[in-house]
Amino acid sequence: MRISQLSQAADLPVGTVKFYLRTGLLHAGRATSATQAIYDESHLERLRLVRALLETGKLSHAEIQRVLAALAAPQAAPDAEPLDTVEMIALATAESADVDASRIDVAAAREVVEQLGWSISEHSPHLPALANALSALQSIGVAPTAERMRVYAEAASHVARNDVATVIDADPAVRALVAAAGTALYDAFFTALRRLAVENQVARQRTRVPGQRATAIPSA
Amino acid sequence: MRISQLSQAADLPVGTVKFYLRTGLLHAGRATSATQAIYDESHLERLRLVRALLETGKLSHAEIQRVLAALAAPQAAPDAEPLDTVEMIALATAESADVDASRIDVAAAREVVEQLGWSISEHSPHLPALANALSALQSIGVAPTAERMRVYAEAASHVARNDVATVIDADPAVRALVAAAGTALYDAFFTALRRLAVENQVARQRTRVPGQRATAIPSA
Repeated sequence: MRISQLSQAADLPVGTVKFYLRTGLLHAGRATSATQAIYDESHLERLRLVRALLETGKLSHAEIQRVLAALAAPQAAPDAEPLDTVEMIALATAESADVDASRIDVAAAREVVEQLGWSISEHSPHLPALANALSALQSIGVAPTAERMRVYAEAASHVARNDVATVIDADPAVRALVAAAGTALYDAFFTALRRLAVENQVARQRTRVPGQRATAIPSA
Repeated sequence: MRISQLSQAADLPVGTVKFYLRTGLLHAGRATSATQAIYDESHLERLRLVRALLETGKLSHAEIQRVLAALAAPQAAPDAEPLDTVEMIALATAESADVDASRIDVAAAREVVEQLGWSISEHSPHLPALANALSALQSIGVAPTAERMRVYAEAASHVARNDVATVIDADPAVRALVAAAGTALYDAFFTALRRLAVENQVARQRTRVPGQRATAIPSA
């Protein structure tokens, strides 16, 4: 299809499609003349992915470049061990932390993951992100208690087990997509569910639904 | 203190402090002359809050205005019922969805919360946010299975119960802050924990730590 048809199919202005071509977010079409090219289903798929990562995942252009690189990498080795593929989740989201790691004291964050007994690399890019969130909460006087920390960690473990299992179970051809793109978009999914869960809790408190009980998640 | 001292204490450029004064994110100081004013601890606290919401909560200026309005409101009625206060969580985060609700078909999202048995208002601002996330996941072919939906909903309920309990248990003087500001910042906290939990899961899979087991969260 021509660029105008591609733009229409992806519901994006032609100017935006051209911008993605210039910045490398979209791969070039097959040139049919000096000024025209033909695009196929792979371009439409890529545009849908970029759009989803941009609008829903709220990723920056640089982060999207990184996700696309992670997606391109495994195709070189389709029979790679599942666990190597799983590492892509970490790779693809490594920079989503979006914090200047060098300026952050990660001691408090390291203490948290130690208390949880989690196996975390000393140089994990997510430690500065956790330290940053902790320090922001502290700065306004709403730092988490040990109990709240535990509840959040249990919930995070619960979804993480499912995330990793989903990647391992996925078809190898789409495993990279599930790992890299899914993680960013599932943040938006979880945030929306969490807001709705609060609304549900408030409604339950107000009507005192019988049978409501405190629940515990077995730690992993 | 003078504006230069306030700026230093908050670790923000004077220009930024002046910008917040102009846009109303920071309340005016006590004027001591036509061109000078004195600021106190309340200004420093406010700057810390705005900075945390902006940098860690990633809220827009408009969203921060809404959080500040929610914080100002309950002071008029300090003895309000706890459950009315809890509604502030929903109020303060109502617009965080950041989606053009009118353009979104919320039928799929409504079906999800119905299947979960959650009490959600037909006009909840979080339904368009969930619908938006679902449609983005669908557009790139990684829509959640029923099982994945269940796991995420369990995790969301687990933190939501804790969030609501934390607000109810909080000192009335800071309850609004815990509800409104805490919710936005705890998103960043959870996202960081979730990334670390994935890293931990991958490490466990690789070393096959004995005793790892599938866990279930009882539904609420």
